[in-house]
Amino acid sequence: MIKIAIDALGGDNGVDTTVKGSMLAIQEFKDIEIILYGDIDKINPLLTNKERISIVDTKVQVSMGEKDPVKAIRTLKDSSLVMALKAGKDKEVDAVVTAGPTQCVVVGAHLIVKKLPQMSRIALCPIMPNFDGNPRLLLDVGANVELRPEHINELALFASITAECALNIKNPKVGLLNIGSEPGKGREVDKETFILLSQNKNINFYGNVETFDIVDSPVDVMITDGFSGNMVMKTMEGTGKTMAKMLKQEIKSSLGGKIGYLFMRKNLARFAKRMDSKEVGGAMILGIGTPVVKAHGNSNDYAFKNAIKQVRNMVSNDLINKVTALLPSTEDKE
Amino acid sequence: MIKIAIDALGGDNGVDTTVKGSMLAIQEFKDIEIILYGDIDKINPLLTNKERISIVDTKVQVSMGEKDPVKAIRTLKDSSLVMALKAGKDKEVDAVVTAGPTQCVVVGAHLIVKKLPQMSRIALCPIMPNFDGNPRLLLDVGANVELRPEHINELALFASITAECALNIKNPKVGLLNIGSEPGKGREVDKETFILLSQNKNINFYGNVETFDIVDSPVDVMITDGFSGNMVMKTMEGTGKTMAKMLKQEIKSSLGGKIGYLFMRKNLARFAKRMDSKEVGGAMILGIGTPVVKAHGNSNDYAFKNAIKQVRNMVSNDLINKVTALLPSTEDKE
Repeated sequence: MIKIAIDALGGDNGVDTTVKGSMLAIQEFKDIEIILYGDIDKINPLLTNKERISIVDTKVQVSMGEKDPVKAIRTLKDSSLVMALKAGKDKEVDAVVTAGPTQCVVVGAHLIVKKLPQMSRIALCPIMPNFDGNPRLLLDVGANVELRPEHINELALFASITAECALNIKNPKVGLLNIGSEPGKGREVDKETFILLSQNKNINFYGNVETFDIVDSPVDVMITDGFSGNMVMKTMEGTGKTMAKMLKQEIKSSLGGKIGYLFMRKNLARFAKRMDSKEVGGAMILGIGTPVVKAHGNSNDYAFKNAIKQVRNMVSNDLINKVTALLPSTEDKE
Repeated sequence: MIKIAIDALGGDNGVDTTVKGSMLAIQEFKDIEIILYGDIDKINPLLTNKERISIVDTKVQVSMGEKDPVKAIRTLKDSSLVMALKAGKDKEVDAVVTAGPTQCVVVGAHLIVKKLPQMSRIALCPIMPNFDGNPRLLLDVGANVELRPEHINELALFASITAECALNIKNPKVGLLNIGSEPGKGREVDKETFILLSQNKNINFYGNVETFDIVDSPVDVMITDGFSGNMVMKTMEGTGKTMAKMLKQEIKSSLGGKIGYLFMRKNLARFAKRMDSKEVGGAMILGIGTPVVKAHGNSNDYAFKNAIKQVRNMVSNDLINKVTALLPSTEDKE
């Protein structure tokens, strides 16, 4: 039985989403057991089926607008987020899912769950939609502002095995996001990273990938430092959102557009779904000793259920042991 | 009379576009004179109106697929691109327009036209489409891989005045592209840049801008280093292109979609036009002593004419003198 801790108070919709999503996951996966960390008085009325679900009561929530993640994680020890992560650290559970505020989850993963002794850094790794319908991994999107080549090389291995375990991709192709596709492109850090990745026998390194291909990518895993990854991810999301807004505006601007919309409503809904990151899954924290998935803050039941599915796959496919076996054994890294 | 040198052999369509675009510009602007650098035998049959247009004959072209820009610029001295830039350097003309290969244009601007003595770096600065229909400037998108805070600060001034002169924006707002909107975000280089930009009395500094707002931007000028800018620009372009491909695919996937298309064809055309970078103008090389505009390689007559219009505005609004007056006088910078 795979035990999963849920931060039931996290996310824009709190218990409404997390409790319903948990019940959906329990129905779909017979090999999981869920522990909800949250307000028992709010959870109980929603919990219409208690099969394989237990509750650890806490009323304290990490606010979605939290401006000081380090302080929040250090002081709110009885918050649903910190308690769920602590359970992950202490191996009371096999994995953790939260829809809480991203930077608090990253800081919590870092300070509470802690990185594997063989890893130098952790990374935030969302799943990105792609033209062909097969999701891609992108990292780091903001756990670190800067990463040295050896950090990116370690994280590339972790991400590669994560792509296998979480998304069932065999021998995933790993690409270095860069400003040109030929070797020798980019900053010094990118050139050095390219060499390390080329020499890494534990990954299937494809070479450089340009961001022009971000949604139509030739690789399964796209890696770069946390500053660049964050800039790229938000550019993609923002462009998608603004284009959708433009499209709506143009369609509404004339009678022909409105009539046309009636005919192609379903087509447009499918189009929107293809770019919807809620469809593809939550962001994973890589580099730590217990799988943690950060579902979107505005997840609905279905998206939250999918985040649970994602973390379940990571556990049942033995992600952490597979990574540990391939990392060179070493004393604890800074 | 404003004299403009045209690299007539540059671009995917060569003389077909450059000659026709030049004739369109001559018709529209009575204060310009054009010198076409290119193959007189190919130009003459297309040049149905020679008013204010002269030709400097050369058969040598810098190939659009050129892999070694430095070598190309150094060796192809009688190419249309190098000759046009040389005319710009020698002040035989007031400005240069080319649709040639981007990196060759950047290298040519650097090696031939050369930066102003008071500038430390040059930058490639495209005009980006935006939700509200008012174009924005983005820089640097690839003239430099890395830029120090003082370089970005100098370029911010140049870009600000360029926004005024080329796009008629009064008191343009300048934003630093960053991974968060609050001060103190980003890498060390971003934090230092933020401070310099805040202290720069010659620009209207807005603060940090997240890339989520790249196509719905609160500022007129978005500035960052050449690596980040290139990653962001290509992410935006690639996302736009892939989304358009997805939309087409979904519309074609059913009869309802095809019928709907007939009704909203015009709406979709307007939508496509809003995201079309050909509509908004060419990329400018900032930091050099003569205005140079790099039109899109696949420009049509109309887009090429607009690039000429853009460079004409830069000259008639006295861009270079305005910048020079505000830059601290100094010995030639490295």
